[in-house]
Amino acid sequence: MKVAFQGELGAYSEKAIIKHWGYRVEPIPKPFLKDVFDAVETGETKQGLVPTENSIQGSVIRTLDLLNERKLKIQDEIILRIRHCLIANPRVKIGDIEKVYSHPQALGQSREYLEKHGFEPINTYDTAGSVRMLKEQGILNAAAIASSRAAKFYSMNLLEEGIETNKQNYTRFLVIGHDISDPTGNDKTTIVFNIEKKKGSLVDSLKILSEQGINIIKIETRPVVGKPWEYHYFIDLEGHNKTPVIIKDLRNLEARVSSLKVLGSYPRAN
Amino acid sequence: MKVAFQGELGAYSEKAIIKHWGYRVEPIPKPFLKDVFDAVETGETKQGLVPTENSIQGSVIRTLDLLNERKLKIQDEIILRIRHCLIANPRVKIGDIEKVYSHPQALGQSREYLEKHGFEPINTYDTAGSVRMLKEQGILNAAAIASSRAAKFYSMNLLEEGIETNKQNYTRFLVIGHDISDPTGNDKTTIVFNIEKKKGSLVDSLKILSEQGINIIKIETRPVVGKPWEYHYFIDLEGHNKTPVIIKDLRNLEARVSSLKVLGSYPRAN
Repeated sequence: MKVAFQGELGAYSEKAIIKHWGYRVEPIPKPFLKDVFDAVETGETKQGLVPTENSIQGSVIRTLDLLNERKLKIQDEIILRIRHCLIANPRVKIGDIEKVYSHPQALGQSREYLEKHGFEPINTYDTAGSVRMLKEQGILNAAAIASSRAAKFYSMNLLEEGIETNKQNYTRFLVIGHDISDPTGNDKTTIVFNIEKKKGSLVDSLKILSEQGINIIKIETRPVVGKPWEYHYFIDLEGHNKTPVIIKDLRNLEARVSSLKVLGSYPRAN
Repeated sequence: MKVAFQGELGAYSEKAIIKHWGYRVEPIPKPFLKDVFDAVETGETKQGLVPTENSIQGSVIRTLDLLNERKLKIQDEIILRIRHCLIANPRVKIGDIEKVYSHPQALGQSREYLEKHGFEPINTYDTAGSVRMLKEQGILNAAAIASSRAAKFYSMNLLEEGIETNKQNYTRFLVIGHDISDPTGNDKTTIVFNIEKKKGSLVDSLKILSEQGINIIKIETRPVVGKPWEYHYFIDLEGHNKTPVIIKDLRNLEARVSSLKVLGSYPRAN
């Protein structure tokens, strides 16, 4: 089975795929997040994996926008601990390093380490792609920040592991596919809706959900393009969309809001 | 009077300053958003101007994080229509252009125009800074996307105005300073708080505000760094913090949530 992900082989997304499925699936790298949705929609891959939230950076808004625009369902959730590694060509020693290449988020999350060593950070598009670039060009005065998987994949030297400033660094990934998952007893449901500009209506809408004891785990807003200061509300709820209480509440909610969509019900990751 | 802003002279932020104050204040450019907060805190400038939300891209999360970390107050709100312009050196004609330099957001918002003309987009850090770079290097086969103000400021040629795909493109800016503004009768209040991980408490907290008819204009979440999947809730309310109903409700809210902060009460922009 094939699973599409955004980034190059050795990316954190590929690591999340291996954590979830082991080596039973073939990870298919794609340059952009929209390509992951395309791959699943066209049937090139059965499922896709997309990052939705990092515990330090916050939501991945491009993923939220795509979930809203496309018709795929969220089928599962994977949480991966992000451990940034300093990676260089085999002969390079810490003392040889002047510059460090990586994605701006990985550089930012490792800033204390970089400053302590006086390394100059250089922005790139991709963590694993920076490792590949160092290897291809045989660069000996620089390193990259990426996952340990990237070092292994490109046979590069892992000089230091866990260089991120804050160790509570986790990324939450979603598995996307065509159908809604079956209930497991410990599930989440993600919905998205709009609200007409009317007094108090956001709270009224949320009250419908909470009256029957449904717990709201997360709320996120994104602009409605073309309607300044109106929002799409993305809400994560406890429970599965096939259980009576959620079915009833979502029906009540639908009467109050515009364009309610259930983006998926799926087992909750620990 | 001096007002600090992020970006170079000719930036959209500088345009917002001129819209609000005319030429009565001196705009002081700063490289990063945190430098704008620093300038006001140290007294280098009396106020600062920071972008908080674009009607297409959504919230400027770095501004939200800084408002939460620092002690400055929001004193006013300015809404600016964003009209992207194609700007080049004086002798350059549309037919000479091969590449277009700008900030990724400006390039993305003008994608249809760029594709129609077959121009190659090149990412830079700044809209006005791209205009300056074209001028300094005398580049004749490229243009930049920036505000009309940037063309005027650098005496460059404005080849086309309003090249953004979606015309409903507005940015909301906040004025930051040391004190809370006086009530005007048409005000907004911005608060931020955390919630302990406890069932239903987000909705309970919002209900306190809505019970007395306070309207919630916007809700935004940001991660609590070091506590994965806990959030800072940023809420914009209708009304001023010096009116009795808001004072009472915020006191009730304070009993239920952690670390409630009023970030400011300020006149609402139209």
